[in-house]
Amino acid sequence: MKAKGKVTIPTDESFVEGTKRIAALWGADAVRDCDGTVLPANVAELAEKVYNTYFIVRGDNAWADKHPEEAHRTFLMSERVVAEGDTLEIDPMQRYFAQQIAPDAGELARWEVIDRTTGELHARWQWVAEKGVVRIEGAVPMHEYTVSFMAKILWHPVQIYNYLTNNWTCEKQKAYDPAFPATAEYVKRHMQEWCDAHPETNVVRFTTFLYQFTLIFNEKGKEKYVDWFGYGLSTSPALLDAFEKEYGYALRAEDFVDGGCYANPFRLPGKRFRDWMDFVQRKVSSVVGELVDIVHKNGKEAMMFLGDDWIGAEPYGKYFKDMHLDAVVGSVGGGVTVRMLSEIPHVKYTEGRFLPYFFPDTFFDGNEDNAVAELNRNWVTARRALLRKPLDRMGFGGYLSLAAKFPKFVDRVAEICDEFRAITAAAGKARPYCGLTVAILNEWGTIRSWMSHMVAHELWYQQVYSYQGVLEALSGLAVNVKFISFDDVRTHGFDEDIDVVINVGDAYTAYSGGKNWADEKLVSAVRGWVREGHGFIGIGEPTAYAQGGRYFALADVLGVDKEVGFTLSTDKYNLDKHAHFITEDVRGEIDYGEGMKNIYALDGAEVLDIVFSDRFKRRYSVGEVKLAANECGAGRGVYIAGIPYSPQNARLLLRSMFWAAHREDEMKKAFSSNPLTECTYYPETGKYALINNSTDKQTTTFYDIAGKGAKIALAPGETRWIEG
Amino acid sequence: MKAKGKVTIPTDESFVEGTKRIAALWGADAVRDCDGTVLPANVAELAEKVYNTYFIVRGDNAWADKHPEEAHRTFLMSERVVAEGDTLEIDPMQRYFAQQIAPDAGELARWEVIDRTTGELHARWQWVAEKGVVRIEGAVPMHEYTVSFMAKILWHPVQIYNYLTNNWTCEKQKAYDPAFPATAEYVKRHMQEWCDAHPETNVVRFTTFLYQFTLIFNEKGKEKYVDWFGYGLSTSPALLDAFEKEYGYALRAEDFVDGGCYANPFRLPGKRFRDWMDFVQRKVSSVVGELVDIVHKNGKEAMMFLGDDWIGAEPYGKYFKDMHLDAVVGSVGGGVTVRMLSEIPHVKYTEGRFLPYFFPDTFFDGNEDNAVAELNRNWVTARRALLRKPLDRMGFGGYLSLAAKFPKFVDRVAEICDEFRAITAAAGKARPYCGLTVAILNEWGTIRSWMSHMVAHELWYQQVYSYQGVLEALSGLAVNVKFISFDDVRTHGFDEDIDVVINVGDAYTAYSGGKNWADEKLVSAVRGWVREGHGFIGIGEPTAYAQGGRYFALADVLGVDKEVGFTLSTDKYNLDKHAHFITEDVRGEIDYGEGMKNIYALDGAEVLDIVFSDRFKRRYSVGEVKLAANECGAGRGVYIAGIPYSPQNARLLLRSMFWAAHREDEMKKAFSSNPLTECTYYPETGKYALINNSTDKQTTTFYDIAGKGAKIALAPGETRWIEG
Repeated sequence: MKAKGKVTIPTDESFVEGTKRIAALWGADAVRDCDGTVLPANVAELAEKVYNTYFIVRGDNAWADKHPEEAHRTFLMSERVVAEGDTLEIDPMQRYFAQQIAPDAGELARWEVIDRTTGELHARWQWVAEKGVVRIEGAVPMHEYTVSFMAKILWHPVQIYNYLTNNWTCEKQKAYDPAFPATAEYVKRHMQEWCDAHPETNVVRFTTFLYQFTLIFNEKGKEKYVDWFGYGLSTSPALLDAFEKEYGYALRAEDFVDGGCYANPFRLPGKRFRDWMDFVQRKVSSVVGELVDIVHKNGKEAMMFLGDDWIGAEPYGKYFKDMHLDAVVGSVGGGVTVRMLSEIPHVKYTEGRFLPYFFPDTFFDGNEDNAVAELNRNWVTARRALLRKPLDRMGFGGYLSLAAKFPKFVDRVAEICDEFRAITAAAGKARPYCGLTVAILNEWGTIRSWMSHMVAHELWYQQVYSYQGVLEALSGLAVNVKFISFDDVRTHGFDEDIDVVINVGDAYTAYSGGKNWADEKLVSAVRGWVREGHGFIGIGEPTAYAQGGRYFALADVLGVDKEVGFTLSTDKYNLDKHAHFITEDVRGEIDYGEGMKNIYALDGAEVLDIVFSDRFKRRYSVGEVKLAANECGAGRGVYIAGIPYSPQNARLLLRSMFWAAHREDEMKKAFSSNPLTECTYYPETGKYALINNSTDKQTTTFYDIAGKGAKIALAPGETRWIEG
Repeated sequence: MKAKGKVTIPTDESFVEGTKRIAALWGADAVRDCDGTVLPANVAELAEKVYNTYFIVRGDNAWADKHPEEAHRTFLMSERVVAEGDTLEIDPMQRYFAQQIAPDAGELARWEVIDRTTGELHARWQWVAEKGVVRIEGAVPMHEYTVSFMAKILWHPVQIYNYLTNNWTCEKQKAYDPAFPATAEYVKRHMQEWCDAHPETNVVRFTTFLYQFTLIFNEKGKEKYVDWFGYGLSTSPALLDAFEKEYGYALRAEDFVDGGCYANPFRLPGKRFRDWMDFVQRKVSSVVGELVDIVHKNGKEAMMFLGDDWIGAEPYGKYFKDMHLDAVVGSVGGGVTVRMLSEIPHVKYTEGRFLPYFFPDTFFDGNEDNAVAELNRNWVTARRALLRKPLDRMGFGGYLSLAAKFPKFVDRVAEICDEFRAITAAAGKARPYCGLTVAILNEWGTIRSWMSHMVAHELWYQQVYSYQGVLEALSGLAVNVKFISFDDVRTHGFDEDIDVVINVGDAYTAYSGGKNWADEKLVSAVRGWVREGHGFIGIGEPTAYAQGGRYFALADVLGVDKEVGFTLSTDKYNLDKHAHFITEDVRGEIDYGEGMKNIYALDGAEVLDIVFSDRFKRRYSVGEVKLAANECGAGRGVYIAGIPYSPQNARLLLRSMFWAAHREDEMKKAFSSNPLTECTYYPETGKYALINNSTDKQTTTFYDIAGKGAKIALAPGETRWIEG
C-alpha cells in the first residue's frame, strides 16, 4: 500500500492521465492550477482537494477602468536635483516606468518638496501639468531638492515582473483598492460570484490580498526598488484619511519615502510608521476576514499565499488571526522559509512549495541530473528545519507534464514525499527535544519571526548573507527559537525560559538596534540579565551605537569592540588565539562571510580567532578578531564576525549557544558528533531522526538523550530513524 | 676638491680620529652628541658646528625632588567598572604603571566620576586614600562608571620608553613644569648656566620643550596609549587655572579624557579643546622664546627637535614664530616627513636625520648589505620629496664607530651626501614647476600640514596606511600642496589657485570631517566650487555623514555612495568597468590597501574599477566600486577606495588630479612616462631632475616643459640632471 496524502501537485487540462499516474506515484491528494494553466473539467476526479488561485485586487480590468480613482497609490521620491540658481524644475517621472506609475496630480496636497541638504520642507513649488514637472522657487543654490509625489499604480507590479520576465502577451492587469467604497463592495460581491462559479474548488488560494510588497520599476522596465516587507504600496488616500481621523495626526510622504530608503525593515521605524503598520494590518485583516467568511459559507477553505500581496497580513502579526484563514502556502527556499511557514499560528495547516518549479528553465532536454540535484539540495536544506517543526503539506508548482519527462526526477520526488510523510508522522504532534532556548533580539521581534535580514524574498545579498546564516543555522538546530524586540525587553524583561540572546546585524540597522542602545534602560536590562548568568551572542556589529568612547554599547559583555578610528592611540595586546569549546569541531578556516573589519578584543576576553593581514602580519597589525568568548559577571558573551550558513558554522553557533548558556556538559544529548550530520529527538514518540546533510557517506557518534554514544554510518543524504 | 657642508654626523670621545676621516669623506660640517655619548674635549676641531642636546624639563632630579608639586600632570580615565549594586569602588591605578604616574589627591576637585552608560557626571563619590580607591555611592546598578583622575607624572615618558627598551640602568629622570612659578625661574637660570658651561656648543638642540606628546604605560611597563599629537601631558593645574582666568570658563577632565579616546587628532575637537590648544601654544612659545633669547645672547643657535616634547610648539601653528628658533631637526621616515620638516616656516634651516640609525640592531657583523639596502630605501623615498622642497641639511644619528666598520655603507653615504648637496644646490632657491595646486581638506588644515593620519610618529597602522599613502604620494609629485580646514572654507571659501581638493579618511573622523558635513553652508560651498569647474577627490569615506538617505554628503559630486544597509532595496546597475585617463598607466591590480567595502556607483558615474566577491561573482553581488570618476556640473569628482603609497598609486593619484582639474592635456610637461620614474623641473635654473625610484634599470619617455618627448634609460636608483 502506497502512503498517501499531504502532497499537492499542479495540473492542467492537457495532462489529465499523466496527472493521475504521478498523483499515484507521489501519493498526492490535492491538485492546483498554475499561472497560465486551466484546471481540467473533471478536476475533482484527480484528487481529494482542488486548489484554485484567486486575486482580490486584480484580474478585472473592466472594473479598474470604471474606477480609476480607486487605483492603488504609492509615495515615490524623485531624483535628487541640485539647484543651480533659485529656481529649478524636477520631473518626478525621471527613471520611473511610465507603464507602472503616473503622478497623481489629484493628490498634490500630499506631495512634498524637500531640501535634502537641510532636510527641511520647501513650501514654494507648483505642479506644472503641461510639462509634467514640479517648479520650485526660492531654492538655495547648491542645495539638493527632491519631490516626494503620490503616484497611481497603473499595472500590478508582480504581474509586470512576470510579464516582462516571461515575455507574456496577455492583458496587463490593473489593480483596485478595497479601501475605497465602491471597490470595498465589489470585492465582496465578486468573492461570492466566484464561489458560485467554482463549485469544484475546495481551497481558495488567495494569491493576492490587498497590498503588494513594494516593487517599483525603472524607465527600462527593470526592477528599481524591491522590499518584500515594504508598505510602499499601501498608501491609499482613503486609508491615509481614515488614519488621520483615528490617530489625530496625518502621515507625511516622508514617513514612507524616508530619504529614498522607503522605511524598509532595516530602518528603525518610528512611532508614526508603527502606527501605520498597525492600522493597515487591522484594515487588511478586516477586509480579508470578510472575504474568508464568504469562502467558508460556501464550504471552501481559504489559503493565503505568503508571497505577493501580503502586506498588512503578517502571519506573526496581532491581527492575522482575525482573517480566519485555514492555511498558508509559501515557497521553500531553505530552512528559514520552512520555519517561517511552519511556525505560523492560527491556521489549520501550512504548506510548502518545493523547488525546482517545473518550468522550462530547468526541465529541458539533457538537464535531468541538474534537476534532481536541485531537488536534493532543496530537500536537504529544508529537511533539517522540517524535523524541528514540519510543514503540514508539501507540493510543487509549474507544469507537471515537464517533470513527467524526467523519470529519475519523478522517482526521487516519490521518495521525498514518503520521507516528508514520515517526518510529519513522527514530528507532527509535539516539539522535539531542545537543549536550550535562544532569542533573536532586534527592533521587530515576533512580527518578523524568521524574517530578519531579507530584502527581496529569499534572494541573497552580499550585505546580509553573513547574518542570514544565523537563522538558517537555527532553523535546523536542536534549540527552541524565539524572536523578541527591544520594546519587549523594555516592557517586561526576558522570559524565564530564555538562555541565550543573539543580536546580529550591521550598525544602526533595526536588526542590531541603533539608537535603542543609547537607552540606558535597555543597556542595563540586557547587561544585568547576562551578568546574572545568561548568554549573549553578538554577530557583526551587535549593540553598535558610537557613544562615550565605545562603539558597541555592550562591549563589556561581548569582550570586543570595533576600532572606528578614535582609539588607534590605545594599544591592543589581546592578540593570541586560544583553543576553546566553541571551536572544537572546526576543521580548516572558519567562514565568516563578509566578516567584520577592525574588531579588537578587550583585556580579559578570550580570542578564539584572529586574522593578521598578509601585508602586516603581526608587526604592525593588531589583527582583526573574528571570534571571541568573554566571561561577564556570572554570564557569558560571544562575538562572531559573521556566520553564513554551512554545517560547520551551524555547529559553531550551536557550541556558542551551549557555552554562553553554561551548558557545555549538556550538548551531547540527542546529538550527532559529525557536524555534517544532525540529530532530532521526539520525546513523545521516543524516536530519533539522524540525518546526513552531505552528499557523501558519513560516520558519526550518535548520543542518545541519556548521553550514551554509539558509532553509526549514514549513507549520502540519509534520514535514519532510530527507536529510543 | 670634495664638496662639503650641509651634513651632520654623530661623534663621541672614543672616536675622534675616525670622525675626522668620515667627516672628510662625507663632507660633514657639523658634529652632534647622541644619547649615551659624550662629545670629545676638542670637539670644535672636528667640524665647523657643534650640536649639543638640551632638555628644558628634565635632567635635574634634585630640582624635581625639591619641587614635587611642580611635576607634570595628566588626566587619565580608570577602567570601566560595572556597578553591581548602588555602591562600587574603582582603583584608578588599575592597568597603569605605578613608576610612571600616581593619582594626585591634591587635585581632587578636578576629578570626575562619570556614568558611562548615560554619559552623565556622578556627584556622590569620595577618594579613600588608605585603599587608593574611589568609592561611588548612589550608583545605578548595571551602569558602567569611570573615574577621570589627575595624575602626577613621576618619570619622563620618553625616557621610560628608552630605558625599558634598551635596558638602561641610569637615573630615572623626573620632569618639572615651567608653568609653575619656581620652575619658570629655574629653567631660565639653568639655560644661562648651561650656556656658560658649554662654550664649544654652536647649536643648542632642544630635545625637549615643555610638554611631551601623550605616552602612557600599562602595569607591565608596556605602551598603553600613544598619541604623537596628544595634549594629554599639558594639563598643568597652573595652566588650567590660568586658562579659566583668561577664558572665563574651566575645562573639565572629560575635555581631555573624551571617553577614553583622549581627544586625539582623529576626533573632532570642539571649541573648548581648540581654545586649550591655542592657550598652550601661546604659553609654550612664550617660555621657549625666552630661553631661545638667552641662547642667542650667548651667541648660539637654537634648534628644535620635532619629536618628543613638542606639544604646543606646532611648527605650522600661529605662535611658532614667537619662539625665534633658528632651525628644526627631525627624523626622516619617508617623503611625508621630509616635507613636514622642509616646509616649516620662520626658521633659517631645517635638517633631517636619515635612516638607519647607527645602532647595534642594524650594524652587526654580516649585516652590511641590509644596512646599505635600508639606507637606499630611505634615500629613495626621501629623495622625491627633497626634489620638491629640500631640507637644508641632512645628518645621521647613533654611534659613528659602528657605521665606520661597514666600508660599502660609508661609501654609499658619501654618494648620497653629494646627491643631497646637488639637490639643494639646484632646488634650493625657488619652487619647482607644479602642474596644479591641490588642497587637503580636513578639520585641522594648516596646523597639521603633512601630519594627517598619524598616531605614533611615523609608525604604520592598519587603519591608516591606506590614507597616509595620499600624503606620501603627494610629497614627491609635481603639484603644489596646501592644507585647508573646513573653517577655512566656511570663512573665506577656496583660494584662487586651488584646482583640486582631496578629502580622505574614515567616516566621522576629523580627517573626513564628520558633522562638518551636516553643515549646509560647507556642503553648498564645496559643491558649488566643484560644479563651477574644479576637482574633488574623495578617498575612503569622504564627506561621510549619514543623513537624509545618503551616507556621503557629496555623493552627487563623488558619483558614489556607501551602502550601510538602508538602501539594499534599491537596485544598483552601474557595474561595468570602463577604461579611463586615470587608469592608463595601471599594470595589474590596483592596490587599495584596506580598501572600502560596500561602495556603489550612482547612475551617471563612470566606474573605473569594481570588485565582485569570489563567492558571488556578478550573480548576487552588486560589486564593490573601488575607483570611479564623475562629471558634476562643470567640475569633476573622483572616488578612490584607498591608496597606500606605491609608484603606481602615486601615478594614479596624479592622473586623478589632472583629470579632476580638466588638465589632462597638461600632464605631460616636465614629466616622465614610466611610473617608476619621476621628473622635477626648476624653471629658475632650467634644470630637470629625472629619478628612478626602482632598483632596476628603467626606460622612460622624458617630456620637457614644452611637452617634447625623448626616450631615456636610467640606471637603478639614478638621479639624472638634464639641462633645459
